[in-house]
Amino acid sequence: MNAPTPHQHLAPVIAQREVPAALIAALQHRFGANCSTAQVIREQHGRDESAFTTVPPPAAVVFAESTQDVSDAIRLAAQYQVPVIPFGVGSSLEGHLLAVQGGISVDVSRMNKVLSINAEDLTVTVQPGVTRKQLNEEIKSTGLFFPIDPGADASIGGMSATRASGTNAVRYGTMRENVLALEVVTASGEVIRTGTRAKKSAAGYDLTRLMVGSEGTLGLMTEITLRIYPLPEAVSAAICSFPSIEAAVRTTIATIQMGVPIARVELLDANTIRMVNAYAKLGLNEAPMLLMEFHGSPAGVKEQAETLQELAAEFGGQSFEWATTPEERTRLWTARHNAYFAAIQSKPGCRAISTDTCVPISKLADCLLESIDEADATGLPYFLVGHVGDGNFHFGYLIDPNNPVECATAEELNHKLVTRALALGGTCTGEHGIGLHKMDFLRAETGEGAVDMMRTIKRALDPHNIMNPGKIFSL
Amino acid sequence: MNAPTPHQHLAPVIAQREVPAALIAALQHRFGANCSTAQVIREQHGRDESAFTTVPPPAAVVFAESTQDVSDAIRLAAQYQVPVIPFGVGSSLEGHLLAVQGGISVDVSRMNKVLSINAEDLTVTVQPGVTRKQLNEEIKSTGLFFPIDPGADASIGGMSATRASGTNAVRYGTMRENVLALEVVTASGEVIRTGTRAKKSAAGYDLTRLMVGSEGTLGLMTEITLRIYPLPEAVSAAICSFPSIEAAVRTTIATIQMGVPIARVELLDANTIRMVNAYAKLGLNEAPMLLMEFHGSPAGVKEQAETLQELAAEFGGQSFEWATTPEERTRLWTARHNAYFAAIQSKPGCRAISTDTCVPISKLADCLLESIDEADATGLPYFLVGHVGDGNFHFGYLIDPNNPVECATAEELNHKLVTRALALGGTCTGEHGIGLHKMDFLRAETGEGAVDMMRTIKRALDPHNIMNPGKIFSL
Repeated sequence: MNAPTPHQHLAPVIAQREVPAALIAALQHRFGANCSTAQVIREQHGRDESAFTTVPPPAAVVFAESTQDVSDAIRLAAQYQVPVIPFGVGSSLEGHLLAVQGGISVDVSRMNKVLSINAEDLTVTVQPGVTRKQLNEEIKSTGLFFPIDPGADASIGGMSATRASGTNAVRYGTMRENVLALEVVTASGEVIRTGTRAKKSAAGYDLTRLMVGSEGTLGLMTEITLRIYPLPEAVSAAICSFPSIEAAVRTTIATIQMGVPIARVELLDANTIRMVNAYAKLGLNEAPMLLMEFHGSPAGVKEQAETLQELAAEFGGQSFEWATTPEERTRLWTARHNAYFAAIQSKPGCRAISTDTCVPISKLADCLLESIDEADATGLPYFLVGHVGDGNFHFGYLIDPNNPVECATAEELNHKLVTRALALGGTCTGEHGIGLHKMDFLRAETGEGAVDMMRTIKRALDPHNIMNPGKIFSL
Repeated sequence: MNAPTPHQHLAPVIAQREVPAALIAALQHRFGANCSTAQVIREQHGRDESAFTTVPPPAAVVFAESTQDVSDAIRLAAQYQVPVIPFGVGSSLEGHLLAVQGGISVDVSRMNKVLSINAEDLTVTVQPGVTRKQLNEEIKSTGLFFPIDPGADASIGGMSATRASGTNAVRYGTMRENVLALEVVTASGEVIRTGTRAKKSAAGYDLTRLMVGSEGTLGLMTEITLRIYPLPEAVSAAICSFPSIEAAVRTTIATIQMGVPIARVELLDANTIRMVNAYAKLGLNEAPMLLMEFHGSPAGVKEQAETLQELAAEFGGQSFEWATTPEERTRLWTARHNAYFAAIQSKPGCRAISTDTCVPISKLADCLLESIDEADATGLPYFLVGHVGDGNFHFGYLIDPNNPVECATAEELNHKLVTRALALGGTCTGEHGIGLHKMDFLRAETGEGAVDMMRTIKRALDPHNIMNPGKIFSL
């Protein structure tokens, strides 16, 4: 493994390709008012939640309302060899939505129908613009739920494209495990289907898993079939404070190694709790904390909780606070959900540069503790939250985007953290994707050979390089 | 979806490509005694457990002992554009090992080392020739186990290449979920790595999942990192007889829909139990039967078992027989494990043509019951076993391979079954792969567009079509 080289992630490489007026005219003819070239619309679609400096926005935005719309938009773009950037709700953290090579944005937020709910098979098929909260609202009456919960109320299309996960992944897996089948519009505008509703299959290449996590570079997903789950009979949540981050992490490691089927186990450091308390007046103990949730039968949940209490006690955990009603649980989880916003508010005008390493669970303490020392030494404020049951955690370095020193400090911290995570057998991104930010890290992580294989696949499936070009790898 | 057309699976298309004497000489020079052209060795490597009639064997067999050996063998083959067929233990059921376009066999059975056991991360890295039983033997002392268990003591390489599963998949998933990372020798002989030991990742295209299930057509896996699991604290097994197959299946469907985390739930029909009783003198009740296994804490296992008993009672299940000691469990599971051999012995000289459909769980009863009626109407003997918790089941039609009427009858039954499964939203293969047998079914299942995408990927990654050509799709 080669060490990644630092790079200037706030200045992505821009190589704008021409968008001919004839294409814009053809799109306007086909889509009428659903094709916009208004500056404000274009600008909305040319940025995301990443910390990237401004890139010129896409030349036009097509609001697709059907698979046919998507297919027609891509066919027209293909005819002119113009880039197509899929857009869901704009919550990418890695610059996926930036028109670094120019082109048009295809916004699928109006494709927001839950197409079928197969409650007895625990599957649901949705359009890509359905958001995770909308989905859970729409299937609530069936007694089923969709567990994947990235921080934002992201679209299912975006979550699939970035192989997203969240707090429940430790028990329920990520989008990798939970997307069963797809309808995809390819780079030539053709509509194909991958997978079936069967729970398992050995039928040919796993195109579903190839598309999941391909960040819009191989096609645009227009239908997504997902696994859903029975709402657990019993749910119990708890928070527990620890004398140190190490103690909290060691408790987590022991939990996973024992095979306790915990549903969620999230870490917040003392400083993040201070921010959350200031933001939402929660009055939480300002010490490293684990937030946990247990799903199962009443007896199973009780048993898991007892095991956790014993483990936590061994590592000095104290003041377990339990919540069994939905209202109490919501109060506890508010701390976790507000962390990002609380942190952003703690430093007016700042943006957060979020790290996303994930390491084998036995390496979590090493990776995390050294990175905390490193961050503390710089004096740059940050928040720290972690899906620690998966070995995944996020520093959010709070930078003034106009302060080059702070930007460089954050970059350097991230660079050191990723280098450490890779050396420990981990990955540079657990759930946010590569986007513009982590291309060098991807090469360091997987080697040139694997990235070349990705490029070869991309070239074969998208010979004119029109699908979200310039993401994942340079091309 | 187009209906698949019947085909003559016992006569695969053979288009032998020339294997130049210069290649054989070069292999013999490089590999010495580890390259064999002996007729008996070649014949051993030119067949598998499928019912295919004889195809000319590979021209030579290279016994690889290292990644370097594999790389060198493939480089030489690539130089002469000669097919390479990876070989593990030869337990394919779908003709994966047949040299339908000629070429050489690369046998990796001597690459059988467990390279590292990371007990604290619940991962293990193995060479492809390690078999599943060997792996479990070698990790036994750690208190961990690898749950994927196809019928044969298959190699981990072969299991990865066919996306295998088995009786534990209902709880632990298939090779799709349990292969974390790979070292692969590509069609040009290059060695690449995919994935890391991190539990989740959003780092670029999911090459690991692309390779898993690619049946040796995209490269040869030389190292495989797997998830392993803590041996459950408590295990309990049971068998239960039912008045009808429908009652057994309905019990299974209700179990899955309630979210009971059952570890195994297998169906045997009355006739198969008769065969097993005759073979192993087990004295089991000759009625449709579910074999079940529960993993968890003692309380959790008890709770699951009670739920199952209640559900089974609702559907008329009777005479629950429990086994909590390993010896008793082995006795019960013997019935399941012996089904194939018992069936083969019941009709001297026969071969079994095994079906492998998998449907959404709610469709299982419909799919199975109609197919039973159809099979019974022909009078052809068969065994019937099923990983019913996944919606996957196998008929094994017992044919005299020299009797064209029986062969045609089996083919027709399989064809009708697959057509039915596809119409119900299922797949033609849950765990055996496409191989030579199911190419038409794959096209019917996923459509020409998706198969074309697979071909495009294959052409890009293997431009001379040397890696196990003629499998999955025609090319």
